[in-house]
Amino acid sequence: MKPVVVRNIPRPERALVDRLGHLGVSTVHEALGRSGLMKTYMRPIWPGAEIAGPAVTVLAQPGDNWMIHVAVEQCRPGDVMVVGCTADNTDGMFGELLGTSLAAHGVRGLIIDAGCRDVKPLQAMGFPVWSRAISAKGTVKATPGAVNVPVVCAGVAVSPGDVVVADDDGVVVVPLAAAADVAAKGEARKADEDRKRERLAAGELSLDMYGMREGLAKAGLVYVDDLDAHAELVGAASKPNLKRA
Amino acid sequence: MKPVVVRNIPRPERALVDRLGHLGVSTVHEALGRSGLMKTYMRPIWPGAEIAGPAVTVLAQPGDNWMIHVAVEQCRPGDVMVVGCTADNTDGMFGELLGTSLAAHGVRGLIIDAGCRDVKPLQAMGFPVWSRAISAKGTVKATPGAVNVPVVCAGVAVSPGDVVVADDDGVVVVPLAAAADVAAKGEARKADEDRKRERLAAGELSLDMYGMREGLAKAGLVYVDDLDAHAELVGAASKPNLKRA
Amino acid sequence: MKPVVVRNIPRPERALVDRLGHLGVSTVHEALGRSGLMKTYMRPIWPGAEIAGPAVTVLAQPGDNWMIHVAVEQCRPGDVMVVGCTADNTDGMFGELLGTSLAAHGVRGLIIDAGCRDVKPLQAMGFPVWSRAISAKGTVKATPGAVNVPVVCAGVAVSPGDVVVADDDGVVVVPLAAAADVAAKGEARKADEDRKRERLAAGELSLDMYGMREGLAKAGLVYVDDLDAHAELVGAASKPNLKRA
Amino acid sequence: MKPVVVRNIPRPERALVDRLGHLGVSTVHEALGRSGLMKTYMRPIWPGAEIAGPAVTVLAQPGDNWMIHVAVEQCRPGDVMVVGCTADNTDGMFGELLGTSLAAHGVRGLIIDAGCRDVKPLQAMGFPVWSRAISAKGTVKATPGAVNVPVVCAGVAVSPGDVVVADDDGVVVVPLAAAADVAAKGEARKADEDRKRERLAAGELSLDMYGMREGLAKAGLVYVDDLDAHAELVGAASKPNLKRA
Amino acid sequence: MKPVVVRNIPRPERALVDRLGHLGVSTVHEALGRSGLMKTYMRPIWPGAEIAGPAVTVLAQPGDNWMIHVAVEQCRPGDVMVVGCTADNTDGMFGELLGTSLAAHGVRGLIIDAGCRDVKPLQAMGFPVWSRAISAKGTVKATPGAVNVPVVCAGVAVSPGDVVVADDDGVVVVPLAAAADVAAKGEARKADEDRKRERLAAGELSLDMYGMREGLAKAGLVYVDDLDAHAELVGAASKPNLKRA
Amino acid sequence: MKPVVVRNIPRPERALVDRLGHLGVSTVHEALGRSGLMKTYMRPIWPGAEIAGPAVTVLAQPGDNWMIHVAVEQCRPGDVMVVGCTADNTDGMFGELLGTSLAAHGVRGLIIDAGCRDVKPLQAMGFPVWSRAISAKGTVKATPGAVNVPVVCAGVAVSPGDVVVADDDGVVVVPLAAAADVAAKGEARKADEDRKRERLAAGELSLDMYGMREGLAKAGLVYVDDLDAHAELVGAASKPNLKRA
Repeated sequence: MKPVVVRNIPRPERALVDRLGHLGVSTVHEALGRSGLMKTYMRPIWPGAEIAGPAVTVLAQPGDNWMIHVAVEQCRPGDVMVVGCTADNTDGMFGELLGTSLAAHGVRGLIIDAGCRDVKPLQAMGFPVWSRAISAKGTVKATPGAVNVPVVCAGVAVSPGDVVVADDDGVVVVPLAAAADVAAKGEARKADEDRKRERLAAGELSLDMYGMREGLAKAGLVYVDDLDAHAELVGAASKPNLKRA
Repeated sequence: MKPVVVRNIPRPERALVDRLGHLGVSTVHEALGRSGLMKTYMRPIWPGAEIAGPAVTVLAQPGDNWMIHVAVEQCRPGDVMVVGCTADNTDGMFGELLGTSLAAHGVRGLIIDAGCRDVKPLQAMGFPVWSRAISAKGTVKATPGAVNVPVVCAGVAVSPGDVVVADDDGVVVVPLAAAADVAAKGEARKADEDRKRERLAAGELSLDMYGMREGLAKAGLVYVDDLDAHAELVGAASKPNLKRA
Repeated sequence: MKPVVVRNIPRPERALVDRLGHLGVSTVHEALGRSGLMKTYMRPIWPGAEIAGPAVTVLAQPGDNWMIHVAVEQCRPGDVMVVGCTADNTDGMFGELLGTSLAAHGVRGLIIDAGCRDVKPLQAMGFPVWSRAISAKGTVKATPGAVNVPVVCAGVAVSPGDVVVADDDGVVVVPLAAAADVAAKGEARKADEDRKRERLAAGELSLDMYGMREGLAKAGLVYVDDLDAHAELVGAASKPNLKRA
Repeated sequence: MKPVVVRNIPRPERALVDRLGHLGVSTVHEALGRSGLMKTYMRPIWPGAEIAGPAVTVLAQPGDNWMIHVAVEQCRPGDVMVVGCTADNTDGMFGELLGTSLAAHGVRGLIIDAGCRDVKPLQAMGFPVWSRAISAKGTVKATPGAVNVPVVCAGVAVSPGDVVVADDDGVVVVPLAAAADVAAKGEARKADEDRKRERLAAGELSLDMYGMREGLAKAGLVYVDDLDAHAELVGAASKPNLKRA
Repeated sequence: MKPVVVRNIPRPERALVDRLGHLGVSTVHEALGRSGLMKTYMRPIWPGAEIAGPAVTVLAQPGDNWMIHVAVEQCRPGDVMVVGCTADNTDGMFGELLGTSLAAHGVRGLIIDAGCRDVKPLQAMGFPVWSRAISAKGTVKATPGAVNVPVVCAGVAVSPGDVVVADDDGVVVVPLAAAADVAAKGEARKADEDRKRERLAAGELSLDMYGMREGLAKAGLVYVDDLDAHAELVGAASKPNLKRA
Repeated sequence: MKPVVVRNIPRPERALVDRLGHLGVSTVHEALGRSGLMKTYMRPIWPGAEIAGPAVTVLAQPGDNWMIHVAVEQCRPGDVMVVGCTADNTDGMFGELLGTSLAAHGVRGLIIDAGCRDVKPLQAMGFPVWSRAISAKGTVKATPGAVNVPVVCAGVAVSPGDVVVADDDGVVVVPLAAAADVAAKGEARKADEDRKRERLAAGELSLDMYGMREGLAKAGLVYVDDLDAHAELVGAASKPNLKRA
């Protein structure tokens, strides 16, 4: 790892970012071919926030938040800071002071594969964070890392300028080159789901709406009337075992 | 595993279900002889919901939600859907569209030993879910499983028609045959606890209320006046070690 | 382990306790030299509570809450009960009845390295608990432990009378002998942070405020203009690898 | 949970058990329709053992091994003891003395969803155990459970007499009623795999052996010559992002 | 935390240490009243080693092995080094070079609540380590900690001079003041177990040897002849539910 | 994610690969600036193997091993296959048949962020695998992924052709462009460590060898004679608290 800061990074247009943010994590993840989703341990430190923005990336050594301080200078209003570590860590590498600083520079939120502290003041100031842990553990400033280089955060490769979308469902990362295409696909998907939701709310079965019955039968699914018929199906001697299909 | 759907299952009377729901998870679990409790990783995706109902069971392959679609058709108003998987999985096998469909059929909630997505819309529509993870991860429809056969969900065997009770404390499953007995025992326990709560609120010690002092003395418990006396008790040379009993 | 109850323990003055409580977990942990913090799995069962108080300590066998009943008698108004176990456990060793009893004796809250149940009634009565799990699992009263002896709880050694501070960031323990010194250091730190927060909110960079630029340069940090320059820096052949610094 | 011991259980013929044991865990699990496999945390305490036998089941409270003592009397030569708990537990509920006793009664091994101790003497006497943890933690004999009733062990429902197969790959449970069918299917599968192994060892591609190319093309898989062609495929602007497909 | 090294610590006689080592972890833990056992995640990096010795304790910041270097100087032949951290950490804080140094000073082994690397050379030189992880992750030398002060390691409080016993079953810590008493109790226990092992090997049931039958009956345990009788016992309607006691 | 196979990838010279393999994981990781290390949950399924080779990368959906079959065709003798998944998964996506096929094509080993089965036959044939779990769980062939595109595996970004080094300490990935530089740095480091090892084996303290004493004193480290002096240092009233520095 070369200790380096990249000053200028590509950023998508704000309108494109906001279209992705409007779709939300689950839809964007599907439109991306079911990829780009961070691990499920990444949770918001307070519920309800929804953000999207280009990634300013930080590569840090575990328990060392020096590079977060360095990265603030590289942020532009609307950005989302993304911090990956070179090893698993849950220490509180981010808190109220850094949150105040990022908010002052217009950053929309933080995604950090480590711990976060000062939950209450961060919520009070409305600064959202997705982290793997809540931890007051203090950290050091001992080893340089890198800013705005490609990093891995919570299982996902993130390049500077990639679009990060985060809400109560988690965090997804859209490669910059794919952003426009994903937004379009996601909007089509959302429109389709709006129609489907209406039909399902009216009681229609998804079995019928998606035409699944034939495929299921071909895959061998059978119907029986009751548990006695099922017991017969899985074997005469199986009464004590009928708890399994 | 035979791919099969059982159409008709036994269901308890609604009144019995609601008596169990009124007792709540902790009381029901105690009345059941301290068994039937799902693992502690099963958490509500939003707080405050309290449900009870007969189980419509689903056995699914991990990351494959085909059988949930199949199972909707077998649900009756008041049911609770319970999904177990053949291997550990946290993918988002359930979301807003399936929630809309289940709600349209009067299902009271979902218990799933996998991930759930669309937390915000599910909370907005008041559809409760207990899951092992929140995850936007998309899933496939590739392999059939089974509906209304006995399954294991989060460490507990569940037969179709068993009564599921879920609240902020977790999820407990009452075998159908035991439901009436458990309701009665739970109500007696609750009445007893109401009386005890009053005495404890008035300052009475549970040591006295339960008559524990004799048993403790017999088990060898002694009282000393202070930490110096304790140090003497555990050994003259123990000053640097007095941090342990 | 000798089964023993120590009746009289040292307790700090209420004013000192409240000064520490006012500082909060993160500041106290820093003032303590970045030590004394319990593991991050210790979470409040409901958000927002902030407590501080001298520890009444309990050493219990896993899944056995007998000694919690014993310990109630040793509590004084303003105390915080701290329960450690001799092995990892998530069973529901504490619930509404014990919470009612502790509240009746003026105890400010519970810290337990095990499970807790009755989340809703405990929140309704405003009794705060930090635990490693929420679990309805019932427990036994089979083996005596100890009260008011030094214990380990969630990775931290706690002596009776040590000051426990807990909030949404977690739980920290201040040795009684260090309490006054830590309070003073924490207050100085807080005042300093108040000044810094103001400067950061006005847009000043922490890089400048802390004078970090020289140290970073000495540690080898370099700046480049863009990703192309970065690619050159890390190697001519590195195009397919430029995702890493 | 009713505290009860069932004295007589169905057992399969020894020859059938041994056929299943000869197939091994992976083949049996496949022949069972990819079900019946215990969680991956169940590991042998020493490597290399391979056993099969009918299950004598034990339902225990966590950290309480009373029922294991009770169950010994119900074992017959060739049996495998299977212990499930009512809550997650890693305490050392089994060790050398109980191992000596089970070995004296001809039991082939133990499957326990809890901890095991005395690893070295158990290996020395050749008694195999699959457990979720190695732990010296001592346990109590406080609460009765049940013997030879259906239990859940490491995520799988086990009825008394079901055939347990365990080796270095883990543990699988075959319902008694399905045992003969599974043995036959497994043997056919094994014969087929023997033929395939030979072809693969000779360098044939599974792509061709299974005829997968058409299906892959239909599913949209394309081939490109090199990483430059790939970069073009995923977007002109994607150079900094080409680390993802 | 005060950065300090304590030069002289109490140490038990070598003969007493070796008696405890001869007993092994499980017996010592029992003789200690079922306490003092480290968490089950502490595993030997290679199997078969058995050590005992007085603890030279190290308190380190996570991912910082500076104090291990400092502590070497304080070790005497026969000692065991015990390293606790102020927060959860799995980085490789110890490896071949430090192992070479400790071995040169006659240290018997290392207990570290963090990661260890160089597994193969450490095994080749016969230097045993119990750690929570195997990790090559490099660490820093940035923040001082302490040597020979009381620490918490893997859930257990350890004072300098306490006797550490470690083998394939894990790690247990005996307070110095209790060492002689524990050795005597452990030897009595071992002699008793030797007699019991012989009886159990001859086929005697522990039920009879411990005289448990009466207590079990009093606790409500009943015997039934077969699964049909059990089904009757737990309820007429319970056929589909008979998988639970 | 675009379903695509890249046919031609850059590969380093065999001699360079073998130099890196000879250095081993820990030294390579240090020479790489303490980065590139996979998570510690990646363990060899059998001990002692040491491999190095250029990565043929596979991106798979969880529980779906279709793309591993596809990737075999792209392997050349000396390669190492690296499999990442789009979500956490422990299913047995690899076993004996695929191992036979890879071995037939000269592949040196497999790195898979999922489960592996057939431990015993894979060890018998000498084919090494590093995986996050051992699991017999069968998988599907339902969704295409990609081959020879950049992937994330166990927390590390891997591009096709990067050099993978794996041994008992874990797995590290060297970007192709950095390979020569890392090999040179690693060899220098190794030579230096050889000299140091000799001095340490002779009893020299690393404190002196590295000249650490001045830095430690500057950082505030003090020495005291014994535990009484330490107690004085940390506070007159601290006797019951002296278990912490």
